[in-house]
Amino acid sequence: MPEGSADWLLRLVEGVAVLAFALSGVIEATRRRMDVVGICSVAFVTAFGGGTLRDVLLDKRPFFWVAHWGWVWVVLVLSAGVALWWRSGHAHFTARAIRLPDALGLGLFGAVGTSQAAALDMPAVVSALMGVVTAVFGGVLRDILCNEIPAVFRDHRPYAVCAFAGAWVWLGADALAAPAPLALGLAAATASGLRLVALARGWQVPGWRSDESV
Amino acid sequence: MPEGSADWLLRLVEGVAVLAFALSGVIEATRRRMDVVGICSVAFVTAFGGGTLRDVLLDKRPFFWVAHWGWVWVVLVLSAGVALWWRSGHAHFTARAIRLPDALGLGLFGAVGTSQAAALDMPAVVSALMGVVTAVFGGVLRDILCNEIPAVFRDHRPYAVCAFAGAWVWLGADALAAPAPLALGLAAATASGLRLVALARGWQVPGWRSDESV
Amino acid sequence: MPEGSADWLLRLVEGVAVLAFALSGVIEATRRRMDVVGICSVAFVTAFGGGTLRDVLLDKRPFFWVAHWGWVWVVLVLSAGVALWWRSGHAHFTARAIRLPDALGLGLFGAVGTSQAAALDMPAVVSALMGVVTAVFGGVLRDILCNEIPAVFRDHRPYAVCAFAGAWVWLGADALAAPAPLALGLAAATASGLRLVALARGWQVPGWRSDESV
Repeated sequence: MPEGSADWLLRLVEGVAVLAFALSGVIEATRRRMDVVGICSVAFVTAFGGGTLRDVLLDKRPFFWVAHWGWVWVVLVLSAGVALWWRSGHAHFTARAIRLPDALGLGLFGAVGTSQAAALDMPAVVSALMGVVTAVFGGVLRDILCNEIPAVFRDHRPYAVCAFAGAWVWLGADALAAPAPLALGLAAATASGLRLVALARGWQVPGWRSDESV
Repeated sequence: MPEGSADWLLRLVEGVAVLAFALSGVIEATRRRMDVVGICSVAFVTAFGGGTLRDVLLDKRPFFWVAHWGWVWVVLVLSAGVALWWRSGHAHFTARAIRLPDALGLGLFGAVGTSQAAALDMPAVVSALMGVVTAVFGGVLRDILCNEIPAVFRDHRPYAVCAFAGAWVWLGADALAAPAPLALGLAAATASGLRLVALARGWQVPGWRSDESV
Repeated sequence: MPEGSADWLLRLVEGVAVLAFALSGVIEATRRRMDVVGICSVAFVTAFGGGTLRDVLLDKRPFFWVAHWGWVWVVLVLSAGVALWWRSGHAHFTARAIRLPDALGLGLFGAVGTSQAAALDMPAVVSALMGVVTAVFGGVLRDILCNEIPAVFRDHRPYAVCAFAGAWVWLGADALAAPAPLALGLAAATASGLRLVALARGWQVPGWRSDESV
């Protein structure tokens, strides 16, 4: 996530995205009957796992959650709170409810991940992959911890490809010397918009149908 | 694990902890019908995975098992030996039998992990998390390799929270300028003691009961 | 993989090995009914995961697929192409069909991984382990993403032990001051040859039979 940017809008969307990803971790972990330790761990990994893997691959320190460690408390306390509050029956979130913040996070994390890799002079296709890793690997790790095949690999709804498209928009805008906020905004809007349109229209990624023999 | 410390007691507990963690890997791998390669691999990952992940996150080298590579031989040879000996029916270890060494390892690895992160000037909550990662991630990786939801996330018995509590004891002792061996000892004793008391008393971490609908 | 080597034979075998590993990822992912995003991701991780994990553990940059980023396109495009072509029913690859290129990859990746760790002055047993990690961890990650217990841990056919044996041949040849290409060739031939002989003869790694009680 960008250092030195005072843009409060970016910070706001970033915060919404972290919380959306953490919430998707809470939802999945409660579905698998984990205890409060598991719920907090899965929420943490979902929210910060993609960016952390990107930074490990790029050999970049400090991690977002080390530099902005207040977020660690926010995610841990809110996850525990939501899980206990939810368990008491007073509220209910569904995967559907987090579609919008999740799509915002997908677009923003993908654009930021791409820009960070490009700033380290990575080749274009590697930068695009780093954007995708940032956007989707939190969810992949969440599903591995929950002992499931990652949803992004098989639910046939475009997710990673939206982030991939957004990454190329960023790379194109950057090649045209667009100012940084414009490139970020265009890329994030492309990925988030594609995701929302794809969900609304029921677009499908090709693959094996479950009634096909291999 | 601390360099330059000549404390034989620390070395002894450390060795016991590595062996206990390796043994828990052997038990889990044989339960899943792995061959001797799988048993050695799972034992290795369980014993050294937590500390290795911590060092990757902290960008710290060399790893414990690179600096003290004799332990690699010890773990590989003992794991293969225990598995073959056990298979011949002459002995039987149960998960219950490793409770005590496992609790010792939990306390010691958590305290050492916290102190190593703090030595790199990490924020307090990050240091505490690094202690927890050191103590529990070997077991998490073991369960992922065995295709199970990590036990620490859902068995409702306090494990990670004991390491977390011990980490804060270390941070408190350090803030009060306690000498290093005292801080380590207090933190490790807190975590190990909490774990043993929790097992003896049947304390539960809140979560979803399996008869609750989500 | 070795820098500065102009040996076209090495490059050729390396390319064959990357493609064989990617193909084994495609086969496994289609078997689990993934979509094209999942197929490409699993192929990528299988082909480059072992070397990437080795480089993360050795703190070495850039990764093979960052330095030679053309391979990223080759793997992504070929995986998507093979999956769609295959789905249309015009072709069929089986796990049996990739045994030979997979064995070549096992030998070559293991030897190269060992030599790279030794070049960083790692202890012998650590270098041997790094060779094994390079050769087998792509497949381990493939199986984790496909929600299976890694085949290398439990199919009872020698795989990791062949890479381990090849690694020690490299270390022995290096200790005897053999020229680099000879050491690489001997080590790779040992591992690949052992693998092929083991498959042909049905050698078994000891372990638990599925009808044994634990």
